[in-house]
Amino acid sequence: MQARILAQLLDAGPLSKAQLADRLQVSRTTVAAEVARLVELGLAQDAGPAASRGGRRSTLVDLSEDVHFVGISIGATGMSVGVTDGRLAVLATRHQSCDIRQGPEVVLAAAIELVREVIDEVGVTSLMGAGVGVPGPVDFGRGVSVSPPIMPGWDGYPVRDAVSRELGCPVVLDNDVNVLAVGEQHAGVARGAQDFLFVKIGTGIGCGIVIDGELYRGVNGCAGDIGHIRVEDFGPTCACGNTGCLEAFSGGAALARDATAAARSGRSPALAAILEEKGELTAADVGHAVAQGDAQAVQLIRDSGRHIGQVLAGLVSFFNPGLIVIGGRVTGLGHALLAEVRGVTYRRSLPLATGNLPIVLSELGDEGGVIGAARLISASVYAP
Amino acid sequence: MQARILAQLLDAGPLSKAQLADRLQVSRTTVAAEVARLVELGLAQDAGPAASRGGRRSTLVDLSEDVHFVGISIGATGMSVGVTDGRLAVLATRHQSCDIRQGPEVVLAAAIELVREVIDEVGVTSLMGAGVGVPGPVDFGRGVSVSPPIMPGWDGYPVRDAVSRELGCPVVLDNDVNVLAVGEQHAGVARGAQDFLFVKIGTGIGCGIVIDGELYRGVNGCAGDIGHIRVEDFGPTCACGNTGCLEAFSGGAALARDATAAARSGRSPALAAILEEKGELTAADVGHAVAQGDAQAVQLIRDSGRHIGQVLAGLVSFFNPGLIVIGGRVTGLGHALLAEVRGVTYRRSLPLATGNLPIVLSELGDEGGVIGAARLISASVYAP
Repeated sequence: MQARILAQLLDAGPLSKAQLADRLQVSRTTVAAEVARLVELGLAQDAGPAASRGGRRSTLVDLSEDVHFVGISIGATGMSVGVTDGRLAVLATRHQSCDIRQGPEVVLAAAIELVREVIDEVGVTSLMGAGVGVPGPVDFGRGVSVSPPIMPGWDGYPVRDAVSRELGCPVVLDNDVNVLAVGEQHAGVARGAQDFLFVKIGTGIGCGIVIDGELYRGVNGCAGDIGHIRVEDFGPTCACGNTGCLEAFSGGAALARDATAAARSGRSPALAAILEEKGELTAADVGHAVAQGDAQAVQLIRDSGRHIGQVLAGLVSFFNPGLIVIGGRVTGLGHALLAEVRGVTYRRSLPLATGNLPIVLSELGDEGGVIGAARLISASVYAP
Repeated sequence: MQARILAQLLDAGPLSKAQLADRLQVSRTTVAAEVARLVELGLAQDAGPAASRGGRRSTLVDLSEDVHFVGISIGATGMSVGVTDGRLAVLATRHQSCDIRQGPEVVLAAAIELVREVIDEVGVTSLMGAGVGVPGPVDFGRGVSVSPPIMPGWDGYPVRDAVSRELGCPVVLDNDVNVLAVGEQHAGVARGAQDFLFVKIGTGIGCGIVIDGELYRGVNGCAGDIGHIRVEDFGPTCACGNTGCLEAFSGGAALARDATAAARSGRSPALAAILEEKGELTAADVGHAVAQGDAQAVQLIRDSGRHIGQVLAGLVSFFNPGLIVIGGRVTGLGHALLAEVRGVTYRRSLPLATGNLPIVLSELGDEGGVIGAARLISASVYAP
């Protein structure tokens, strides 16, 4: 009942006790008792008198103004941290580059430092909870990272408990792609979607799966690991040891590698110029070269998008989702990539499955991870 | 409450009202009233006195002996029909070849004829419901087939209502692969599994998806259409119009085509001999040639298994299931096929996802579809 009241306040608050009783189909007495308990727990508060409806004035109830959540979204090369109110509106954020390979102590200490900065900025003294996303598989129940291929030193590290100890509040840990999917569902283009895929194309490639409004994690918590789906029998060797993986063709690291080769071979004057200036190339530089009309850069993006589309077409045939959202750093490459992904996906899937299937870019940027992480912990605080 | 009582009786019946009250944590009065209603509906019956526990003798309740369901499982080239009791034990079955391309009137008339034979055999006069599986996409809510690639004449045909009118009972319609998956879950190797895939390799190839104990049908009801996932850029043209689809490499029809080519080219003496004798080859003949030690036939099965394994590896990475069951006619090829499928799937998926992942052959045969179809309608009758 408390969870249902909080869900109503989150959706539509402030509400009077009479309105709550109507919406939940229970007596006002029950609502009053449950609200009193929520006020004691610090989760709800009185919010002044309701507009008169003729009878006795009712009091409005709302989520407590003192509820604050923190979202920590750690990627392979950067992290975003933010603080939200109880309604998950973001009050302050920080973004900072980091190297996940420095190990959990260093990376988490940097994240905690950013948390202290944002809560100081907003003047928050106590946190109701924190959500954390990391770029690798997670044992959700135990709150630890497990055998993360790009995260040496993180295997078995008790991330959840370590962060909880530092911040003095409950913490949930999930992988970054699931966190981004939840952010998209709460505040992005997937708002209201019940069955959708969130595909992150960053240094690596992964997929968050939402079924019937809930994250699907799979039997071992590693569902959505699409970066290692085979797209060709041969090709560059992947970080996982196999050849032909999607990630080894279309991830951000792969794109940077291919861009460097194109620059050195003289096939791409634009990329060669950027390489000479900066000393190295990233996936974003391919976007810059495309903007300058560089044919080879356009071809790199097409090849990348084709392989992504081939994998997505297979997932559409298998899963028949209602929406696909594409996010992550590589989406800076924007519509050239999206056009190729769409073309291949629509062409290679059953018409029945693609007739009403939007494939769209995320619009949330770094804030998506912060909102998603805050949303995950809020769900566990509001509906224990 | 009625659904919960029926579920208990289905699982563990006969039970006394006292036992039901204990198991459901409600009063005996409530149980007695609900049981009375179930008896009126013809779903439950008294089953004699319970063994004395010292106090007043309680009466046992059980599912009614008069409850019977029919399961109709229609494939591209054959159909199975059976009648079960209320506990889904199969009382009688018929299997008959058919050609789905003859259209719904002819095929359904043949199915209804088989239903009349089995219920006559068992002496059943009235049916509580029937489940029907057809080899193509289905609009589950409306009970009609939709744009089925191998089923000319079936598009939009009201299969559910037509069968319901003929048999005078409620009917559910689903695609054959979902029906087989449900059968496997109820009475096969997937008994008790909550998250598993059932892969049917017959004339075509499809997949039933069970999540959290329930069939997942996707947003448009066409989830599991894995036969048209791309495995190569080029290859034989598929029935869907694309090239490189799994089904065009590894379906029963593809195997028969490749076997015929191998026989004609002189590469396979064993297949050539069978072709000369019978005038045509089927997938099963490849199995016969393998049994004779024909190297080319072994190679055909390996190639088929490799492509299936490539697709399954992708699904394992994406979905992280707890079990994969392989069924359908081609499983007659047995362990040679399974060994290749397993090898490729295990090699190409994340170790975390395959550590405890059994990949096994179905053992139900034709009865699987009958049980699954009966299970689908029983679920709707018992928990309306």
